[in-house]
Amino acid sequence: MQIEVLPNAGSPLLPYLEDKLVIVIDVLRATSTMVTALANGCQAIIPVLTPEEALERRLTLPGSLLGGERHGLPMDGFDLGNSPFDYVPEKVGGKRIIMTTTNGTRAIRDAIAAPMIWMASFLNMQSIVLAIVRQFENSRKFQGIVVFCAGTEERFDLPDTLCAGMLIDGLGPEVVLNDLGEAARMLYRSSENHLVDKIRDSVHGKKLISLGFEQDLIYCSTPNILPIIPVFEEGEIVWLTKE
Amino acid sequence: MQIEVLPNAGSPLLPYLEDKLVIVIDVLRATSTMVTALANGCQAIIPVLTPEEALERRLTLPGSLLGGERHGLPMDGFDLGNSPFDYVPEKVGGKRIIMTTTNGTRAIRDAIAAPMIWMASFLNMQSIVLAIVRQFENSRKFQGIVVFCAGTEERFDLPDTLCAGMLIDGLGPEVVLNDLGEAARMLYRSSENHLVDKIRDSVHGKKLISLGFEQDLIYCSTPNILPIIPVFEEGEIVWLTKE
Repeated sequence: MQIEVLPNAGSPLLPYLEDKLVIVIDVLRATSTMVTALANGCQAIIPVLTPEEALERRLTLPGSLLGGERHGLPMDGFDLGNSPFDYVPEKVGGKRIIMTTTNGTRAIRDAIAAPMIWMASFLNMQSIVLAIVRQFENSRKFQGIVVFCAGTEERFDLPDTLCAGMLIDGLGPEVVLNDLGEAARMLYRSSENHLVDKIRDSVHGKKLISLGFEQDLIYCSTPNILPIIPVFEEGEIVWLTKE
Repeated sequence: MQIEVLPNAGSPLLPYLEDKLVIVIDVLRATSTMVTALANGCQAIIPVLTPEEALERRLTLPGSLLGGERHGLPMDGFDLGNSPFDYVPEKVGGKRIIMTTTNGTRAIRDAIAAPMIWMASFLNMQSIVLAIVRQFENSRKFQGIVVFCAGTEERFDLPDTLCAGMLIDGLGPEVVLNDLGEAARMLYRSSENHLVDKIRDSVHGKKLISLGFEQDLIYCSTPNILPIIPVFEEGEIVWLTKE
Protein backbone atom coordinates (compact mmCIF):
# COMPACT_ATOMS: atom_id res chain seq x y z
CA MET A 1 0.00 0.00 0.00
CA GLN A 2 1.42 3.37 -1.11
CA ILE A 3 1.10 6.16 1.46
CA GLU A 4 2.10 9.77 0.89
CA VAL A 5 2.05 12.17 3.82
CA LEU A 6 1.75 15.92 3.14
CA PRO A 7 2.94 18.31 5.86
CA ASN A 8 0.36 21.10 5.79
CA ALA A 9 -2.65 22.68 4.15
CA GLY A 10 -2.09 25.28 1.48
CA SER A 11 0.70 23.46 -0.35
CA PRO A 12 1.00 24.57 -3.97
CA LEU A 13 2.13 21.05 -4.91
CA LEU A 14 -0.66 18.50 -4.64
CA PRO A 15 -0.26 14.90 -5.78
CA TYR A 16 -2.73 13.23 -8.15
CA LEU A 17 -5.77 12.59 -5.90
CA GLU A 18 -8.38 11.21 -8.28
CA ASP A 19 -7.62 7.57 -7.37
CA LYS A 20 -6.61 8.07 -3.74
CA LEU A 21 -8.22 7.65 -0.36
CA VAL A 22 -7.44 10.87 1.51
CA ILE A 23 -7.12 11.02 5.29
CA VAL A 24 -7.20 14.52 6.80
CA ILE A 25 -5.57 15.02 10.20
CA ASP A 26 -5.80 18.13 12.37
CA VAL A 27 -5.16 16.90 15.90
CA LEU A 28 -5.29 20.37 17.51
CA ARG A 29 -8.21 20.54 17.04
CA ALA A 30 -10.42 20.45 13.94
CA THR A 31 -10.60 16.74 13.17
CA SER A 32 -10.60 15.80 16.89
CA THR A 33 -13.55 18.13 17.37
CA MET A 34 -15.39 16.82 14.29
CA VAL A 35 -15.06 13.22 15.50
CA THR A 36 -16.33 14.28 18.92
CA ALA A 37 -19.26 16.24 17.46
CA LEU A 38 -20.41 13.26 15.40
CA ALA A 39 -20.01 10.95 18.41
CA ASN A 40 -22.24 13.35 20.34
CA GLY A 41 -25.07 13.15 17.83
CA CYS A 42 -24.33 16.03 15.49
CA GLN A 43 -26.05 15.28 12.16
CA ALA A 44 -23.42 16.76 9.83
CA ILE A 45 -20.54 19.22 9.73
CA ILE A 46 -20.21 21.59 6.78
CA PRO A 47 -16.60 22.78 6.46
CA VAL A 48 -16.20 26.26 4.98
CA LEU A 49 -13.10 28.37 4.47
CA THR A 50 -14.05 31.74 5.98
CA PRO A 51 -16.26 33.13 8.74
CA GLU A 52 -18.10 35.15 6.07
CA GLU A 53 -18.86 31.98 4.12
CA ALA A 54 -20.11 30.38 7.37
CA LEU A 55 -22.51 33.26 8.02
CA GLU A 56 -23.82 33.10 4.45
CA ARG A 57 -24.33 29.35 4.56
CA ARG A 58 -26.37 29.63 7.74
CA LEU A 59 -28.95 31.73 5.89
CA THR A 60 -29.69 28.68 3.72
CA LEU A 61 -29.69 26.22 6.65
CA PRO A 62 -32.12 27.33 9.36
CA GLY A 63 -31.46 25.66 12.72
CA SER A 64 -27.80 25.02 12.01
CA LEU A 65 -25.00 26.13 14.34
CA LEU A 66 -21.80 28.04 13.56
CA GLY A 67 -18.51 26.70 14.91
CA GLY A 68 -14.79 27.29 14.55
CA GLU A 69 -11.89 29.50 15.51
CA ARG A 70 -9.44 32.13 14.41
CA HIS A 71 -6.11 32.33 16.29
CA GLY A 72 -7.39 29.46 18.44
CA LEU A 73 -10.29 31.46 19.86
CA PRO A 74 -14.08 31.38 19.32
CA MET A 75 -15.52 34.08 17.05
CA ASP A 76 -18.20 36.71 17.73
CA GLY A 77 -21.59 35.61 16.52
CA PHE A 78 -20.60 31.94 16.45
CA ASP A 79 -22.35 29.33 18.60
CA LEU A 80 -19.33 27.11 19.19
CA GLY A 81 -15.54 27.48 19.26
CA ASN A 82 -13.07 24.82 18.15
CA SER A 83 -12.88 23.07 21.53
CA PRO A 84 -14.22 19.49 21.47
CA PHE A 85 -15.79 20.25 24.88
CA ASP A 86 -18.07 22.80 23.20
CA TYR A 87 -19.61 20.02 21.12
CA VAL A 88 -21.65 18.32 23.85
CA PRO A 89 -24.80 16.29 23.04
CA GLU A 90 -27.13 18.94 24.51
CA LYS A 91 -25.80 21.50 22.06
CA VAL A 92 -25.02 19.52 18.91
CA GLY A 93 -27.46 16.57 19.03
CA GLY A 94 -29.42 16.41 15.76
CA LYS A 95 -27.87 19.65 14.46
CA ARG A 96 -25.91 20.62 11.37
CA ILE A 97 -22.77 22.60 12.17
CA ILE A 98 -21.14 25.01 9.73
CA MET A 99 -17.48 25.05 10.73
CA THR A 100 -14.41 27.07 9.78
CA THR A 101 -10.93 26.61 11.27
CA THR A 102 -7.55 28.04 10.27
CA ASN A 103 -5.93 24.85 9.04
CA GLY A 104 -8.34 21.91 9.22
CA THR A 105 -11.09 23.05 6.89
CA ARG A 106 -8.48 24.27 4.39
CA ALA A 107 -6.93 20.79 4.30
CA ILE A 108 -10.34 19.29 3.48
CA ARG A 109 -10.84 21.77 0.67
CA ASP A 110 -7.32 21.04 -0.68
CA ALA A 111 -8.27 17.36 -0.87
CA ILE A 112 -11.50 17.96 -2.77
CA ALA A 113 -10.41 16.14 -5.95
CA ALA A 114 -10.21 12.80 -4.09
CA PRO A 115 -13.13 10.33 -4.43
CA MET A 116 -13.11 9.62 -0.68
CA ILE A 117 -12.00 11.81 2.25
CA TRP A 118 -11.98 10.64 5.87
CA MET A 119 -11.11 12.62 9.01
CA ALA A 120 -8.65 11.11 11.46
CA SER A 121 -7.39 12.02 14.91
CA PHE A 122 -5.88 10.09 17.79
CA LEU A 123 -9.42 9.69 19.16
CA ASN A 124 -10.65 7.52 16.28
CA MET A 125 -7.38 6.07 14.98
CA GLN A 126 -8.13 2.39 15.56
CA SER A 127 -11.38 2.67 13.60
CA ILE A 128 -9.61 4.49 10.77
CA VAL A 129 -6.89 1.82 10.55
CA LEU A 130 -9.42 -1.03 10.53
CA ALA A 131 -11.54 0.72 7.89
CA ILE A 132 -8.48 1.25 5.67
CA VAL A 133 -7.51 -2.41 5.97
CA ARG A 134 -11.06 -3.49 5.00
CA GLN A 135 -11.17 -1.00 2.16
CA PHE A 136 -7.94 -2.26 0.57
CA GLU A 137 -8.77 -5.95 1.20
CA ASN A 138 -12.09 -5.76 -0.58
CA SER A 139 -11.45 -3.64 -3.63
CA ARG A 140 -8.92 -1.98 -5.89
CA LYS A 141 -10.89 1.23 -5.91
CA PHE A 142 -7.96 3.28 -4.58
CA GLN A 143 -4.34 3.35 -5.76
CA GLY A 144 -3.04 4.36 -2.37
CA ILE A 145 -3.55 6.80 0.45
CA VAL A 146 -2.66 10.45 0.82
CA VAL A 147 -2.51 11.74 4.39
CA PHE A 148 -3.14 15.48 4.59
CA CYS A 149 -1.73 16.83 7.81
CA ALA A 150 -3.42 20.20 8.29
CA GLY A 151 -0.25 21.70 9.79
CA THR A 152 -0.05 25.01 11.58
CA GLU A 153 -0.22 28.08 9.40
CA GLU A 154 1.32 26.32 6.40
CA ARG A 155 4.04 24.72 8.48
CA PHE A 156 4.95 21.23 9.61
CA ASP A 157 3.10 20.38 12.85
CA LEU A 158 4.42 17.70 15.19
CA PRO A 159 1.03 16.57 16.63
CA ASP A 160 -0.42 15.99 13.14
CA THR A 161 2.73 14.19 12.01
CA LEU A 162 2.74 11.93 15.10
CA CYS A 163 -0.89 11.07 14.35
CA ALA A 164 0.00 10.25 10.72
CA GLY A 165 2.80 8.06 12.12
CA MET A 166 0.34 6.19 14.34
CA LEU A 167 -1.84 5.54 11.30
CA ILE A 168 1.11 4.21 9.26
CA ASP A 169 2.41 2.13 12.16
CA GLY A 170 -1.05 0.58 12.52
CA LEU A 171 -1.07 -0.50 8.87
CA GLY A 172 1.91 -2.81 9.39
CA PRO A 173 5.12 -3.30 7.42
CA GLU A 174 3.62 -3.66 3.92
CA VAL A 175 3.56 0.05 3.15
CA VAL A 176 5.54 2.17 0.68
CA LEU A 177 6.17 5.62 2.12
CA ASN A 178 7.42 9.01 1.02
CA ASP A 179 10.11 10.53 3.24
CA LEU A 180 7.62 12.39 5.41
CA GLY A 181 5.66 9.15 5.90
CA GLU A 182 8.82 7.34 6.99
CA ALA A 183 9.68 10.25 9.31
CA ALA A 184 6.15 10.22 10.76
CA ARG A 185 6.42 6.52 11.57
CA MET A 186 9.86 6.98 13.16
CA LEU A 187 8.59 9.92 15.22
CA TYR A 188 5.52 8.02 16.39
CA ARG A 189 7.51 4.93 17.33
CA SER A 190 10.03 6.98 19.31
CA SER A 191 7.32 8.75 21.32
CA GLU A 192 4.43 6.29 21.42
CA ASN A 193 4.61 6.08 25.21
CA HIS A 194 4.74 9.81 25.87
CA LEU A 195 2.60 11.27 23.11
CA VAL A 196 0.92 13.82 25.31
CA ASP A 197 4.28 15.24 26.44
CA LYS A 198 5.45 15.64 22.86
CA ILE A 199 2.18 17.31 21.91
CA ARG A 200 2.36 19.59 24.94
CA ASP A 201 5.89 20.68 23.89
CA SER A 202 4.90 21.43 20.29
CA VAL A 203 4.50 25.03 19.13
CA HIS A 204 0.74 24.64 18.68
CA GLY A 205 0.46 22.72 21.96
CA LYS A 206 2.18 25.52 23.89
CA LYS A 207 -0.08 28.08 22.25
CA LEU A 208 -3.25 26.18 23.22
CA ILE A 209 -2.02 25.82 26.80
CA SER A 210 -1.31 29.57 26.94
CA LEU A 211 -4.89 30.20 25.77
CA GLY A 212 -6.25 28.00 28.58
CA PHE A 213 -6.98 24.88 26.50
CA GLU A 214 -4.74 22.30 28.21
CA GLN A 215 -7.69 19.96 28.80
CA ASP A 216 -8.42 20.06 25.06
CA LEU A 217 -4.83 19.08 24.34
CA ILE A 218 -4.90 16.15 26.76
CA TYR A 219 -8.21 14.93 25.35
CA CYS A 220 -7.06 15.29 21.72
CA SER A 221 -3.92 13.25 22.51
CA THR A 222 -5.93 10.23 23.68
CA PRO A 223 -5.89 7.35 21.20
CA ASN A 224 -8.75 5.07 20.22
CA ILE A 225 -11.70 6.20 22.30
CA LEU A 226 -14.26 7.00 19.58
CA PRO A 227 -15.26 4.36 17.00
CA ILE A 228 -16.22 6.77 14.25
CA ILE A 229 -15.12 7.44 10.65
CA PRO A 230 -16.17 10.91 9.57
CA VAL A 231 -16.44 11.05 5.78
CA PHE A 232 -16.78 14.08 3.52
CA GLU A 233 -19.74 13.53 1.18
CA GLU A 234 -21.48 16.11 -0.98
CA GLY A 235 -20.09 19.02 0.99
CA GLU A 236 -20.86 17.56 4.43
CA ILE A 237 -18.95 15.52 6.97
CA VAL A 238 -21.08 12.63 8.25
CA TRP A 239 -20.65 9.16 9.76
CA LEU A 240 -19.33 6.66 7.27
CA THR A 241 -22.09 4.09 6.79
CA LYS A 242 -20.95 2.17 3.71
CA GLU A 243 -17.25 1.48 3.02
CA MET B 1 19.44 29.68 21.13
CA GLN B 2 16.42 29.81 18.81
CA ILE B 3 16.57 27.41 15.85
CA GLU B 4 14.01 27.21 13.08
CA VAL B 5 14.24 24.39 10.56
CA LEU B 6 12.63 24.84 7.13
CA PRO B 7 11.78 21.69 5.15
CA ASN B 8 12.65 22.61 1.57
CA ALA B 9 13.74 25.23 -0.92
CA GLY B 10 11.08 27.22 -2.75
CA SER B 11 8.84 27.84 0.26
CA PRO B 12 6.62 30.88 -0.20
CA LEU B 13 6.82 31.53 3.57
CA LEU B 14 10.25 32.68 4.67
CA PRO B 15 10.98 33.83 8.21
CA TYR B 16 12.70 37.13 8.97
CA LEU B 17 16.34 36.44 8.05
CA GLU B 18 18.05 39.81 8.47
CA ASP B 19 19.34 38.96 11.97
CA LYS B 20 19.82 35.20 11.55
CA LEU B 21 22.70 32.87 10.85
CA VAL B 22 21.49 30.59 8.06
CA ILE B 23 22.74 27.04 7.62
CA VAL B 24 21.94 25.43 4.25
CA ILE B 25 21.83 21.61 4.10
CA ASP B 26 21.61 19.51 0.94
CA VAL B 27 23.08 16.15 1.93
CA LEU B 28 22.38 14.47 -1.44
CA ARG B 29 24.46 16.10 -2.77
CA ALA B 30 25.00 19.85 -3.24
CA THR B 31 26.41 20.92 0.13
CA SER B 32 28.32 17.64 0.55
CA THR B 33 29.91 18.27 -2.84
CA MET B 34 30.67 21.93 -2.05
CA VAL B 35 32.44 20.99 1.18
CA THR B 36 34.43 18.35 -0.70
CA ALA B 37 35.35 20.74 -3.51
CA LEU B 38 36.69 23.33 -1.06
CA ALA B 39 38.59 20.64 0.86
CA ASN B 40 40.17 19.64 -2.46
CA GLY B 41 41.50 23.11 -3.16
CA CYS B 42 38.73 24.68 -5.20
CA GLN B 43 39.05 28.47 -4.86
CA ALA B 44 35.35 29.35 -4.84
CA ILE B 45 31.93 28.04 -5.86
CA ILE B 46 29.45 30.35 -7.52
CA PRO B 47 25.91 29.03 -7.08
CA VAL B 48 23.49 29.92 -9.86
CA LEU B 49 19.88 28.90 -10.43
CA THR B 50 19.85 27.69 -14.03
CA PRO B 51 22.20 26.01 -16.53
CA GLU B 52 21.72 29.04 -18.81
CA GLU B 53 22.87 31.37 -16.04
CA ALA B 54 25.88 29.10 -15.48
CA LEU B 55 26.89 29.29 -19.15
CA GLU B 56 26.52 33.09 -19.14
CA ARG B 57 28.58 33.49 -15.97
CA ARG B 58 31.42 31.46 -17.44
CA LEU B 59 31.83 34.05 -20.17
CA THR B 60 32.83 36.57 -17.47
CA LEU B 61 35.08 34.13 -15.59
CA PRO B 62 37.67 32.62 -17.91
CA GLY B 63 39.27 29.44 -16.53
CA SER B 64 36.29 28.58 -14.35
CA LEU B 65 34.52 25.19 -14.47
CA LEU B 66 30.82 24.39 -14.77
CA GLY B 67 29.29 21.89 -12.35
CA GLY B 68 25.89 20.61 -11.31
CA GLU B 69 23.01 18.34 -12.20
CA ARG B 70 19.47 18.09 -13.43
CA HIS B 71 17.49 14.97 -12.46
CA GLY B 72 20.61 13.78 -10.64
CA LEU B 73 22.71 13.58 -13.81
CA PRO B 74 25.56 15.67 -15.25
CA MET B 75 24.64 18.11 -18.02
CA ASP B 76 25.96 18.43 -21.57
CA GLY B 77 28.67 21.05 -21.86
CA PHE B 78 29.38 20.98 -18.12
CA ASP B 79 32.80 19.98 -16.74
CA LEU B 80 31.54 18.35 -13.54
CA GLY B 81 28.36 16.66 -12.32
CA ASN B 82 27.03 16.83 -8.76
CA SER B 83 29.02 13.84 -7.49
CA PRO B 84 31.58 14.73 -4.81
CA PHE B 85 33.93 12.25 -6.53
CA ASP B 86 34.01 14.54 -9.60
CA TYR B 87 35.55 17.29 -7.48
CA VAL B 88 39.06 15.83 -7.10
CA PRO B 89 42.10 18.05 -6.48
CA GLU B 90 43.47 17.49 -10.02
CA LYS B 91 40.30 18.94 -11.49
CA VAL B 92 39.21 21.62 -9.03
CA GLY B 93 42.47 22.76 -7.37
CA GLY B 94 42.78 26.55 -7.67
CA LYS B 95 39.62 26.81 -9.79
CA ARG B 96 36.36 28.71 -9.52
CA ILE B 97 33.31 26.50 -10.12
CA ILE B 98 29.98 27.82 -11.33
CA MET B 99 27.42 25.38 -9.97
CA THR B 100 23.70 24.77 -10.40
CA THR B 101 21.70 22.00 -8.72
CA THR B 102 17.98 21.37 -8.50
CA ASN B 103 17.49 22.04 -4.80
CA GLY B 104 20.75 23.12 -3.17
CA THR B 105 21.51 26.29 -5.07
CA ARG B 106 17.85 27.35 -4.80
CA ALA B 107 18.04 27.05 -1.01
CA ILE B 108 21.09 29.35 -0.97
CA ARG B 109 19.27 31.92 -3.09
CA ASP B 110 16.19 31.70 -0.82
CA ALA B 111 18.43 32.58 2.13
CA ILE B 112 20.00 35.60 0.47
CA ALA B 113 18.57 38.14 2.93
CA ALA B 114 20.59 36.66 5.82
CA PRO B 115 23.83 38.40 6.87
CA MET B 116 25.68 35.06 7.08
CA ILE B 117 25.07 31.77 5.23
CA TRP B 118 27.05 28.58 5.88
CA MET B 119 26.82 25.23 4.09
CA ALA B 120 26.50 22.10 6.22
CA SER B 121 26.51 18.38 5.51
CA PHE B 122 27.29 15.30 7.55
CA LEU B 123 30.89 15.58 6.29
CA ASN B 124 31.61 18.88 8.08
CA MET B 125 29.03 18.80 10.89
CA GLN B 126 31.43 18.87 13.83
CA SER B 127 33.13 21.99 12.46
CA ILE B 128 29.77 23.66 11.87
CA VAL B 129 28.60 22.93 15.42
CA LEU B 130 31.83 24.24 16.97
CA ALA B 131 31.71 27.38 14.81
CA ILE B 132 28.10 28.05 15.85
CA VAL B 133 29.00 27.67 19.52
CA ARG B 134 31.91 30.12 19.13
CA GLN B 135 29.76 32.54 17.16
CA PHE B 136 27.04 32.69 19.83
CA GLU B 137 29.51 32.79 22.74
CA ASN B 138 31.36 35.79 21.39
CA SER B 139 28.68 38.09 20.09
CA ARG B 140 25.02 38.93 19.91
CA LYS B 141 25.25 39.53 16.19
CA PHE B 142 22.59 36.92 15.41
CA GLN B 143 19.15 36.46 16.97
CA GLY B 144 19.08 32.76 16.21
CA ILE B 145 19.63 30.23 13.47
CA VAL B 146 17.52 29.24 10.49
CA VAL B 147 18.35 25.85 8.99
CA PHE B 148 17.35 25.63 5.33
CA CYS B 149 16.99 22.02 4.33
CA ALA B 150 17.12 22.02 0.53
CA GLY B 151 14.56 19.21 0.32
CA THR B 152 13.74 17.26 -2.80
CA GLU B 153 11.67 19.06 -5.39
CA GLU B 154 9.91 21.23 -2.82
CA ARG B 155 9.27 18.33 -0.48
CA PHE B 156 10.49 17.21 2.92
CA ASP B 157 13.67 15.14 2.55
CA LEU B 158 14.71 12.68 5.25
CA PRO B 159 18.51 12.90 4.70
CA ASP B 160 18.49 16.71 5.02
CA THR B 161 16.24 16.54 8.09
CA LEU B 162 18.47 13.94 9.78
CA CYS B 163 21.45 16.21 9.14
CA ALA B 164 19.56 19.17 10.66
CA GLY B 165 18.83 16.90 13.63
CA MET B 166 22.51 16.10 14.05
CA LEU B 167 23.29 19.81 14.08
CA ILE B 168 20.63 20.51 16.73
CA ASP B 169 21.65 17.52 18.82
CA GLY B 170 25.25 18.78 18.74
CA LEU B 171 24.21 22.16 20.14
CA GLY B 172 22.98 20.64 23.40
CA PRO B 173 19.80 21.09 25.39
CA GLU B 174 19.70 24.92 25.50
CA VAL B 175 17.87 25.33 22.20
CA VAL B 176 14.35 26.55 21.39
CA LEU B 177 12.99 24.69 18.37
CA ASN B 178 10.11 24.89 15.95
CA ASP B 179 8.20 21.62 15.44
CA LEU B 180 10.33 20.58 12.49
CA GLY B 181 13.47 21.22 14.55
CA GLU B 182 12.14 19.05 17.37
CA ALA B 183 11.18 16.36 14.83
CA ALA B 184 14.65 16.55 13.22
CA ARG B 185 16.33 16.00 16.59
CA MET B 186 14.02 13.07 17.42
CA LEU B 187 14.65 11.52 13.99
CA TYR B 188 18.42 11.90 14.31
CA ARG B 189 18.50 10.45 17.82
CA SER B 190 16.43 7.45 16.78
CA SER B 191 18.69 6.63 13.83
CA GLU B 192 22.10 7.96 14.85
CA ASN B 193 23.63 4.46 14.68
CA HIS B 194 22.20 3.52 11.29
CA LEU B 195 22.18 6.80 9.41
CA VAL B 196 23.37 5.32 6.15
CA ASP B 197 20.52 2.76 6.13
CA LYS B 198 17.92 5.47 6.67
CA ILE B 199 19.46 7.58 3.91
CA ARG B 200 19.61 4.59 1.58
CA ASP B 201 15.87 3.96 2.17
CA SER B 202 14.86 7.57 1.51
CA VAL B 203 13.19 8.51 -1.78
CA HIS B 204 16.20 10.53 -2.93
CA GLY B 205 18.59 7.82 -1.69
CA LYS B 206 16.82 5.15 -3.72
CA LYS B 207 16.89 7.38 -6.79
CA LEU B 208 20.63 8.00 -6.49
CA ILE B 209 21.28 4.27 -6.08
CA SER B 210 19.18 3.55 -9.18
CA LEU B 211 21.33 6.07 -11.10
CA GLY B 212 24.51 4.28 -9.98
CA PHE B 213 25.55 6.71 -7.25
CA GLU B 214 25.53 4.43 -4.18
CA GLN B 215 29.15 5.32 -3.35
CA ASP B 216 28.16 8.99 -3.33
CA LEU B 217 25.38 8.21 -0.87
CA ILE B 218 27.67 6.30 1.48
CA TYR B 219 30.28 9.06 1.35
CA CYS B 220 27.69 11.83 1.91
CA SER B 221 26.34 9.95 4.97
CA THR B 222 29.72 9.98 6.74
CA PRO B 223 29.88 12.43 9.64
CA ASN B 224 32.74 14.71 10.62
CA ILE B 225 35.50 13.98 8.15
CA LEU B 226 36.08 17.46 6.68
CA PRO B 227 36.94 20.42 8.94
CA ILE B 228 35.56 23.11 6.68
CA ILE B 229 32.92 25.85 6.93
CA PRO B 230 31.85 27.00 3.49
CA VAL B 231 30.45 30.52 3.69
CA PHE B 232 28.50 32.45 1.06
CA GLU B 233 30.14 35.87 0.58
CA GLU B 234 29.56 38.35 -2.22
CA GLY B 235 28.02 35.74 -4.48
CA GLU B 236 30.69 33.08 -3.88
CA ILE B 237 31.08 30.14 -1.52
CA VAL B 238 34.54 30.14 0.05
CA TRP B 239 36.28 28.86 3.20
CA LEU B 240 35.23 30.75 6.29
CA THR B 241 38.32 32.57 7.51
CA LYS B 242 36.95 35.00 10.09
CA GLU B 243 34.00 34.13 12.33
